[in-house]
Amino acid sequence: MKVRNILGERFKEAPKDCTIASHAFMVRGGYMRYMCNGIYSLYTPGKRIMQKIEAIIRDEMNKIDGQEVMFPVVMPASIWEESGRYTSIGSEMVRFDDRSGNKTVLGMTHEEAAVHLARDIANSYTDYPFMIYQIQTKFRDEPRARGGLIRVREFTMKDAYSFHTSMEDLQKYYMRCHKAYENIYKRVGAKNVISVSSDSGMMGGSVSHEFMLLSDIGEDSIAICPECGYKANMEAAECITVNPAGEMAELKKVHTPDTKTIEALSDFLHIKENELCKAVVYQKNLTDEYVIVFIRGDLEVNETKLRNLLGEEIHPAAEITEESGIVAGFIGPVNSKAKAVMIFDKSLIGMQNMICGANELDYHYVGANLERDYNKNIEYADVAKIYDGAVCPCCKKPVITIKKGIEVGNIFQLGTKYTESMGMTYLDKDGKLQNPIMGCYGIGVGRLAASVCEESHDDYGPIWPITIAPWHVEICALRADNENVKFCADKLYDELIGKGIEVLYDDRDVRPGAMFADADLFGIPVRVVVSPKNLDKGVVEISLRDKSLKTEFSLETAVEDICKLVNDEFAKYTL
Amino acid sequence: MKVRNILGERFKEAPKDCTIASHAFMVRGGYMRYMCNGIYSLYTPGKRIMQKIEAIIRDEMNKIDGQEVMFPVVMPASIWEESGRYTSIGSEMVRFDDRSGNKTVLGMTHEEAAVHLARDIANSYTDYPFMIYQIQTKFRDEPRARGGLIRVREFTMKDAYSFHTSMEDLQKYYMRCHKAYENIYKRVGAKNVISVSSDSGMMGGSVSHEFMLLSDIGEDSIAICPECGYKANMEAAECITVNPAGEMAELKKVHTPDTKTIEALSDFLHIKENELCKAVVYQKNLTDEYVIVFIRGDLEVNETKLRNLLGEEIHPAAEITEESGIVAGFIGPVNSKAKAVMIFDKSLIGMQNMICGANELDYHYVGANLERDYNKNIEYADVAKIYDGAVCPCCKKPVITIKKGIEVGNIFQLGTKYTESMGMTYLDKDGKLQNPIMGCYGIGVGRLAASVCEESHDDYGPIWPITIAPWHVEICALRADNENVKFCADKLYDELIGKGIEVLYDDRDVRPGAMFADADLFGIPVRVVVSPKNLDKGVVEISLRDKSLKTEFSLETAVEDICKLVNDEFAKYTL
Repeated sequence: MKVRNILGERFKEAPKDCTIASHAFMVRGGYMRYMCNGIYSLYTPGKRIMQKIEAIIRDEMNKIDGQEVMFPVVMPASIWEESGRYTSIGSEMVRFDDRSGNKTVLGMTHEEAAVHLARDIANSYTDYPFMIYQIQTKFRDEPRARGGLIRVREFTMKDAYSFHTSMEDLQKYYMRCHKAYENIYKRVGAKNVISVSSDSGMMGGSVSHEFMLLSDIGEDSIAICPECGYKANMEAAECITVNPAGEMAELKKVHTPDTKTIEALSDFLHIKENELCKAVVYQKNLTDEYVIVFIRGDLEVNETKLRNLLGEEIHPAAEITEESGIVAGFIGPVNSKAKAVMIFDKSLIGMQNMICGANELDYHYVGANLERDYNKNIEYADVAKIYDGAVCPCCKKPVITIKKGIEVGNIFQLGTKYTESMGMTYLDKDGKLQNPIMGCYGIGVGRLAASVCEESHDDYGPIWPITIAPWHVEICALRADNENVKFCADKLYDELIGKGIEVLYDDRDVRPGAMFADADLFGIPVRVVVSPKNLDKGVVEISLRDKSLKTEFSLETAVEDICKLVNDEFAKYTL
Repeated sequence: MKVRNILGERFKEAPKDCTIASHAFMVRGGYMRYMCNGIYSLYTPGKRIMQKIEAIIRDEMNKIDGQEVMFPVVMPASIWEESGRYTSIGSEMVRFDDRSGNKTVLGMTHEEAAVHLARDIANSYTDYPFMIYQIQTKFRDEPRARGGLIRVREFTMKDAYSFHTSMEDLQKYYMRCHKAYENIYKRVGAKNVISVSSDSGMMGGSVSHEFMLLSDIGEDSIAICPECGYKANMEAAECITVNPAGEMAELKKVHTPDTKTIEALSDFLHIKENELCKAVVYQKNLTDEYVIVFIRGDLEVNETKLRNLLGEEIHPAAEITEESGIVAGFIGPVNSKAKAVMIFDKSLIGMQNMICGANELDYHYVGANLERDYNKNIEYADVAKIYDGAVCPCCKKPVITIKKGIEVGNIFQLGTKYTESMGMTYLDKDGKLQNPIMGCYGIGVGRLAASVCEESHDDYGPIWPITIAPWHVEICALRADNENVKFCADKLYDELIGKGIEVLYDDRDVRPGAMFADADLFGIPVRVVVSPKNLDKGVVEISLRDKSLKTEFSLETAVEDICKLVNDEFAKYTL
């Protein structure tokens, strides 16, 4: 392909809305074009990257016995009503009535469609296990699309669904899929990807992993233990706290005027935040019922943990009514008259002589001991956010580090949530009707492309791994108006293509600076410069986009040598 | 792939709603599954056929310098408002508000997206011509989805858009694309495809062609001249009529009680239908204004021609009000007081002494001559439906034949409709601002698959051309419990795969009859039967699905011989 023919424009200034490198380069390099919030069209270079990633994913899915299928983008609400998600998923799922008035949705995930495709077909235990997958367009009406292809509303996703007759079989397959995912990241050239146990959110499973590409621009936080290797999503990482033991003091009410915040109170009483019991008030989305979380004063509530504990959506309390019995700023568990669900975080276990609100304006208790002053049989829950320096849930050392990551894949052990609700059954060996056990496995193709770019670029543009680069080699013909340059560059172009190499050819009449700036934005791994000066020496100039090599190849052997260089590049990403 | 592992069921009885062969076989053969009206999921065999057709289309599009891009499925209404189609397209376009209340549509075609992608980028005449295409999911809320993949609501389509600086350049490219389409049909094994000039409908162009696969189950009718080769869509075929010359008679009003229909009137007056002037009444959709078409009594109105003539949507008049001045059953052009647009079909040219309504209950005129009795300067239009035996517009012989066809592709010369309305411009050689001229080119992938099946099947299943068959070779191991059978079949399977052949392998413990019935439904071109009886003779049994070959290959040379057979099959579809 010739640069002069490619539709797309390359330019120097990043648009104002591009706050991250991959977004800026993929817009500046003519990979994609903004249509509206979270929706892009792709130009040919962008599309080629996507296709290469898709081919690698497809290959790895086929290797673990995946069967490629195709689910619809537009689906009847009925199958989502069967699973219960028609109502449980919020406004990120697009719903509309078709021309006949039938309730219809846009697919944002395809568990329901997978069960629909397989039920009534896989009737016998001998039909199991199997895995079906597709690579298709999905739409999620994200409230906050951002970062170019990192978080969009419309995206291409590989989603896979496996069906099993035992948990053991699911787990075995889950591990095979985990390995296939590792292979995919290695092959597309994503270097810093780790898998972490994760909260499985609305997917409804129990065990799940997220694959995180570590990056400062990531939206997700991961708790990592540098000592024992423990890694978990913040939502899945247990927050472990230790409270010093001591003598139980007397419960006393003290006057604490104008101390509605933790800071104000600890200043006033000259104590540390971890001696306080903090109260955080939420409301349930459906009923507006209040939920009060009691937690040690130095910790934060992780709302996802809380959501999972309650099994429903919540939001920070908007206002606190008088009839609720909640005295804002002075809430405490002891002698509370609040009409609210009370949650006690594990950080309160063994906490002695704590300070907490007295449920009375301008008063706090000191010397409170929950098991003496509130209830002997409190059920504590883990709803605290893990933090830098927290105790590792695995090796128990206080060395947890919080890192940022971009979620580039996830895998879930779903269990029978969908097969039960949607009535998918098979006859087991003993002739008994059973619900198959499911796993599901997703990768967003565009986000992976952008994440690799995020990880692999310099100041001038992307440095695409050759496995996903839009082309393998770029030929820059400086002074293509020179007959010899044109002849040699054309010949090189034709011969490399003849060898099966994908070549981008720039024979435009532009200044070298402009040509190289464009080449940097194309990010093609191998660059070949044909110029009058080089040809006089009987050579072409060769460099790698990552600057690890700059050399000259003799004209006579250039084709072979370039082919070898291309092979060497591919070898870097071979399993 | 082993048959035992494929998700999908094959069965004997066609579901009741399957009225055509391709639909029945693709459901019975486990290619696809109905989800709701016009929406299907595809199993692996169906998906593989689609992918092969897509690869052939992609290759042909790349050969004519197409650049593969990707447009969104979900689009903001704004770009459709720019082109004017947000209002002009009816309820087949899905419209909804996104969570932020923005008007949003589902893409059913992508002219707007193509202009959006290219405008501001292709600013200079030196950037032209170029062609961009995608292969993507589309959704049209069809009122009458039918025939399995023949007419669905959600479908995969290749749509291409070319941009030019002159009509000559567009026409040159249009012919290249026409040739590429012929190549595609040849390569996918669609035999009876003809291209016909067509009405370009809502696309808004002037010159266009439809590619029709001739088939009795087709919904489209095509006028074909067996003498000169003229071919046209019914909407594009001019209806030519000749009226006998004679002496002008006197205009007389006659009493014709109870003769509201053409039949009744011709019976009553003992005349032929072609001596009558028939009136057909329509209403404009937007304004309810009446439109009266006068046409020779033996002809029918082609509503698409009428729609194109008026430039707006119409429907047969639901009821005729008194104040319209229209006297139903007795409508005629002479002395009419009707408040209506009057259209005169060309079939009335030169018609002498005709009988027409007298615009008075129970009265007709005889001896009417339009140019004497109505108006000297009537503008006649072609709104009549061409018919079997009509005069060929090209060679003028009365031999037109009407055939049925399935539209498997279409190409349009769009002109500047979209570039003008959406403000896409470039600077020409003289520094003047111009709108580029567009062409667009579509193929529905699923419909093409189903059409090939429609054309290529027997009583037992599809006969897939090897270029699009889900696999090249099927090995049927009869008595796989026999050690020798299993050993030889396994070996053959592994060796053929090693040679790059796609093999489906049936080693299930089922009766030969059931295995062969399934194989017929899979429709794989080359079948290899490994059985104890054959192995005793040192051979495997070979047959082609189309029954053109049944032979035996020696075990020693079977792999090579099968590879050769596969190559021979491919050669049949090579350009």
